[in-house]
Amino acid sequence: MTRFPAEVYRDRLSRAAELMRSAGVGALLVTPGPDLAYLLGSRAESFERLTCLVVLADAAPFVVVPRIELAALQDSAAEDLGLELRDWVDGQNPHRMVTDAVPPQARVAVADAMPALHLVPIADELGSVPALATPVLRELRMVKDAAEIDALRQAGSAIDRVHARMAELLVVGRTEAVVAQAISAAIVEEGHTEAAFVIVGSGPHGADPHHEVSDRVVETGDVVVIDIGGPVEPGYYSDSTRTYVMGEPTPEVAARVAVLERAQQAAVDAVRPGVTAEAVDAAARDVLAAEGLAEVFLHRTGHGIGLSVHEEPYIVGGNDIPLTEGMAFSIEPGIYFRGDWGARIEDIVVVTADGCESVNTRPHGLTVLAGR
Amino acid sequence: MTRFPAEVYRDRLSRAAELMRSAGVGALLVTPGPDLAYLLGSRAESFERLTCLVVLADAAPFVVVPRIELAALQDSAAEDLGLELRDWVDGQNPHRMVTDAVPPQARVAVADAMPALHLVPIADELGSVPALATPVLRELRMVKDAAEIDALRQAGSAIDRVHARMAELLVVGRTEAVVAQAISAAIVEEGHTEAAFVIVGSGPHGADPHHEVSDRVVETGDVVVIDIGGPVEPGYYSDSTRTYVMGEPTPEVAARVAVLERAQQAAVDAVRPGVTAEAVDAAARDVLAAEGLAEVFLHRTGHGIGLSVHEEPYIVGGNDIPLTEGMAFSIEPGIYFRGDWGARIEDIVVVTADGCESVNTRPHGLTVLAGR
Repeated sequence: MTRFPAEVYRDRLSRAAELMRSAGVGALLVTPGPDLAYLLGSRAESFERLTCLVVLADAAPFVVVPRIELAALQDSAAEDLGLELRDWVDGQNPHRMVTDAVPPQARVAVADAMPALHLVPIADELGSVPALATPVLRELRMVKDAAEIDALRQAGSAIDRVHARMAELLVVGRTEAVVAQAISAAIVEEGHTEAAFVIVGSGPHGADPHHEVSDRVVETGDVVVIDIGGPVEPGYYSDSTRTYVMGEPTPEVAARVAVLERAQQAAVDAVRPGVTAEAVDAAARDVLAAEGLAEVFLHRTGHGIGLSVHEEPYIVGGNDIPLTEGMAFSIEPGIYFRGDWGARIEDIVVVTADGCESVNTRPHGLTVLAGR
Repeated sequence: MTRFPAEVYRDRLSRAAELMRSAGVGALLVTPGPDLAYLLGSRAESFERLTCLVVLADAAPFVVVPRIELAALQDSAAEDLGLELRDWVDGQNPHRMVTDAVPPQARVAVADAMPALHLVPIADELGSVPALATPVLRELRMVKDAAEIDALRQAGSAIDRVHARMAELLVVGRTEAVVAQAISAAIVEEGHTEAAFVIVGSGPHGADPHHEVSDRVVETGDVVVIDIGGPVEPGYYSDSTRTYVMGEPTPEVAARVAVLERAQQAAVDAVRPGVTAEAVDAAARDVLAAEGLAEVFLHRTGHGIGLSVHEEPYIVGGNDIPLTEGMAFSIEPGIYFRGDWGARIEDIVVVTADGCESVNTRPHGLTVLAGR
């Protein structure tokens, strides 16, 4: 499945136009990226040649597209929705094709992902800097419908299958880079379109939340953080972290990871409609603080996920947005002991009528793999 | 190897500053993407939080970076070069940290890849729309040095090994999507960091130059276009196309692919310093035209390649840039018979003192695989 039925996109486009009218935005310009996937089901990736969906508050949407890349839109809902395709060839000015359709004095908003390569000439044509589309589209993209939730479940199952194979992939004596390569292949084998990210944080590297991979060799006794994910059709991401240990853990590691497991569970338990994002963050943080681990939890508790890996809502102190049914985000507290070891546990959850559903179901605690 | 020695980046930064002074640009703002990889060896991928290299015409460069992503710069040359890292935490305004360093009235240029998410607030702070960096950096990035050429050779060998395994991957009875999944895994197994693109154009789908994959089942007799590539460390891309046939080809297919092979060879033979990009395009086009195939060659002959898959120089009519030693680009003529079949042959070549070197060495003609 490369996209949802056409009526899904018809509805999204008309709700986007409604939100635009409420926000006083006359034209919304959407180049390839998550917003284009959301509004049109298109995962076109054109970069140097402009492809741009133009949504107007008071007229029909249309798409500016290079003639040579028309076929890339065949996977989208453009044809089923009867959208006009305004194609162009080298030598024409595609940016002017977009800006000519903008009503005089209208406020213009652009997708967050629009690259400078296109935004600069568009701003030059308009004679002003456009606004960002996110404040307009936020409400729409944050709340997932049933088909999107199902796609997130598929993604969750696929990445769970990779974690289930970890004993075969994460082996003492291999470098993190070699382990990552094997995991990347497994991510694709288990049904993802690609491996979008693979973090193998072994031993002291696990203490850096943003470490990716290195040539460090995995050793007996290492605690290893594995944070992995990628997209499944039609473009929804998995993202799951588990912490492994190569051989029996020390009592201190075991005890601290047990606290982390409780913190992650407390945040999951806190999720339900009406609760704020920051309250969920606090739920994890409070458990760690009670055990003296507040200072070693270095990042926010989570991020929204869907057609992009990181999107709203962010589960972070200061974000008082109330959760609503259908929001999807990670819950991923971690503890980091610089120069020594680290651990993180991450599930993607979807808010339900009275709580949440986790799309990941692998055991949460420290998983013991073979030492040597 | 995740990057070249530090002196490579020191030299690039100082040449960039020189080019900026020539172009009257006071500040160059570079967010994650190929330009950041080029100038700093950093393949940071931060999106929602701003990471930005600030190159000044008349002062030392520095990097604005989220504190939580400081580690992502450890793989870069920033530390070896003693670059100042100005880190920020949530709540601070990172865009102002960048614009505060821009001298009053200075012209500002931004990397092509900077997303609107950052460009809009930066333009708002500046009160004007920046220019694009490409005209400033073009000369620098187009001509590859010895280490870059070696990386392109590694990438070429890796993708050649995938083509060499095609009999095991491209099998009658599998869907294009299943074939693509197997190829993706092989691309990673053969040493790429990821599979960046996989086109499997079987039968009539081969007639669409931008077809990717579908659920069409590969059948006996199909002509199949396989266009694949991905990055190898430190971030340089492979990109190679070969055309296969499932069982013996018809005489017409065999004859036409033989013409295409001659066209591709003619373009390769045309490459040497001083020849224009458009002359290379014409060399392929003339061979096809002489056989009545001009109308079915639907696209340019090639594109530059390096830290991005598509970059300058473009091998296309109207581009009169003279080739110089060290430029690297694809030569990939194709023929497309709508609704029926298509073929394309693509190598990456590097301009040498008196001709060019192809980094791909697989046989160019139609490769016969097993029918059923």
